[in-house]
Amino acid sequence: MEKKVYLDNAAATSVRKEVIEEILPYFDREFGNPSTVYDLGSRIKAVMDEQRAKVAELIGARPEEIIFTSGGTEANNLAIKGIGFAHRKKGNHIIVSATEHHSVLNSARFFERLDYEVTFLQVDEHGLVDPQRVKELIRPETILVSIAHASNEIGTIQPLSEIAQICKEKGVFFHTDAVATVGNIPVDVKELGVDLLSLSGIPLRAPKGIGALYFRKGLRLMPLLHGGIQESGRRGGTENVPGIVGLGKAAELTRLELSQKVKHVKALRDKLVKGVLEKIEAVKFTGHPVNRLPGHASFCVQAIEGEALVFMLSSQGIYVNTGSACASKALKTSPVLVAIGVPAELAQGSVVFTLDTTNTEEDIDYVLEKLPPVVERLRAMSPLWGKKKAASAAH
Amino acid sequence: MEKKVYLDNAAATSVRKEVIEEILPYFDREFGNPSTVYDLGSRIKAVMDEQRAKVAELIGARPEEIIFTSGGTEANNLAIKGIGFAHRKKGNHIIVSATEHHSVLNSARFFERLDYEVTFLQVDEHGLVDPQRVKELIRPETILVSIAHASNEIGTIQPLSEIAQICKEKGVFFHTDAVATVGNIPVDVKELGVDLLSLSGIPLRAPKGIGALYFRKGLRLMPLLHGGIQESGRRGGTENVPGIVGLGKAAELTRLELSQKVKHVKALRDKLVKGVLEKIEAVKFTGHPVNRLPGHASFCVQAIEGEALVFMLSSQGIYVNTGSACASKALKTSPVLVAIGVPAELAQGSVVFTLDTTNTEEDIDYVLEKLPPVVERLRAMSPLWGKKKAASAAH
Repeated sequence: MEKKVYLDNAAATSVRKEVIEEILPYFDREFGNPSTVYDLGSRIKAVMDEQRAKVAELIGARPEEIIFTSGGTEANNLAIKGIGFAHRKKGNHIIVSATEHHSVLNSARFFERLDYEVTFLQVDEHGLVDPQRVKELIRPETILVSIAHASNEIGTIQPLSEIAQICKEKGVFFHTDAVATVGNIPVDVKELGVDLLSLSGIPLRAPKGIGALYFRKGLRLMPLLHGGIQESGRRGGTENVPGIVGLGKAAELTRLELSQKVKHVKALRDKLVKGVLEKIEAVKFTGHPVNRLPGHASFCVQAIEGEALVFMLSSQGIYVNTGSACASKALKTSPVLVAIGVPAELAQGSVVFTLDTTNTEEDIDYVLEKLPPVVERLRAMSPLWGKKKAASAAH
Repeated sequence: MEKKVYLDNAAATSVRKEVIEEILPYFDREFGNPSTVYDLGSRIKAVMDEQRAKVAELIGARPEEIIFTSGGTEANNLAIKGIGFAHRKKGNHIIVSATEHHSVLNSARFFERLDYEVTFLQVDEHGLVDPQRVKELIRPETILVSIAHASNEIGTIQPLSEIAQICKEKGVFFHTDAVATVGNIPVDVKELGVDLLSLSGIPLRAPKGIGALYFRKGLRLMPLLHGGIQESGRRGGTENVPGIVGLGKAAELTRLELSQKVKHVKALRDKLVKGVLEKIEAVKFTGHPVNRLPGHASFCVQAIEGEALVFMLSSQGIYVNTGSACASKALKTSPVLVAIGVPAELAQGSVVFTLDTTNTEEDIDYVLEKLPPVVERLRAMSPLWGKKKAASAAH
């Protein structure tokens, strides 16, 4: 068998065997609709409650504070639109960071088409939001601040509890997109002090198509999917029972294994970063050097196209990303890299590694063996690199 | 083994074995993110395109006219909000029938909180919408008419093509919630003349958590789930690949077997209706007697509580519904039954049978054996029934 090194775990993960086994009976044996009154349905209702408790436990929430969604994107849309529409009477101003995921940015932009105002908050060169700046930007009509817990593109973890404290003092709801953190680092909604938190099943190795929104008990939220009384009236539609069972099982396993995972991926990541910076010249390590996701390494490689690099590495069995998964085809220059001040030319050479427990030290050795010659080959074809070389030779 | 007769196929179905087999590899072997540029992702992208073509073929659409959603509820929300927000400049008036699913009714009510007007169209005693009435209600500011293809509660199939013709002449978008029909009768979007059509995987025996919206090519639609460029920018979020594969396979099988299914369930349904009306007195067969879903039988049984009937039948292994699945816990009196003029008291005794290919003639015999004594027992406890009996004895 050919060597395969999968280092794009932020984009997609394989579902864990234990999770698949747990899901299977809910396709054709326990297939009832949880809203029905008979045993086939009430059994499923009970199973869903167990999963809700498991997801809640992973993030320090109560079961009734969890709404199952079709994924992180729906959770982000529900948070922003749910608060935006439910609290219009209080105000019409929303603050989001400029480096948010598209689901947050575009939900905010949607409100700009209505009679709302949105402030896109700048970040520093490591991608960090300045809590004091949030404080300055909050106005009497501000209803929501939304800042991701971490960036899947540059790995930086934000100082959320400080921002949460400011929002609390000002009486503004605070949402965080924690798709990049839940499953990758310990997350506790009470410690963070957030009012709403989005998570996805993908980093937990649950199936695609399932996620959840945490919302602090008592908080008023307009449904995004209007319908029946599922999810306590906050999300209509027959529940994705197999997905929910998968998320519950994955959350349970993650909770038990997380500290081990963090240790494992951090060691591999540190080896990878060290190796890349040693072996390849003119490479910028992006994001925060310390406050970052343990399994996350991101670089900008001068004078190459990230997409070409990704493509060539895949022919060697190495799977990585360039920029965020969703942006990869939509945009040539990553808005996140622009926001942290990476010059457009250098931002083209973005490459992102996201590690999981399944990765091994051999995987990293393999990458450190294959990556430098691939970069060299791409640079050999690059007129930019030729110029740079000529310029440095002239000095 | 105890006898089990499942006749609540509108609420939930077991996933077909062939569909499960097709799904499995997409959990842990073919798990790539379709938005990524490398082979793991592009293979999935190609697989998704195949599924899109299969779903399109089932309803006479083109592949590019299909948006995958998390189910019928999301499809209905996307249709109504997608048109409502995208065409606000054209107008702010929406017409829906009063007997729509909660996902349509509540999406329409959501717009009433904004600066829109909604007309809830009445139906006749069979649940039919009068196309001429639609014509009269359309105003210059009308942007959307939404009328379900059939009701899962009373089985009535609407004269959609006539309504579609009127909408077309008036330049108004026409959406239909076809969750009750796609998979149960032949549906062709071009023949119906609709601009948008919602479908769910449940009647096709695909997994829960997947559905689709057909939208006529060129039609402008605001996303409901803002995010990345998935689904041609019309629905963000990492795609539920296993769900999509399941829907595609189920659509393919449904297309091949539909005429056989219609014949099979119709014969069983006719036997059931005949038997119920013969064996139980004071029962009203609800919905249209002829223009109805072939596998659908709905009744109101005088002087009993539908929920109690459902519960007692389940103890005999018979699974049926009372009212629509979503309404079963939310409301004591069904708005659909009220709309067709069933007195509130009689509407309490609603019972709905929805059949599938998996049902047999023995299933119907079993129901016809068990149902009459259960009704009798419930009536024996009912003060209403006592009064009725006394009154008719006095005559």
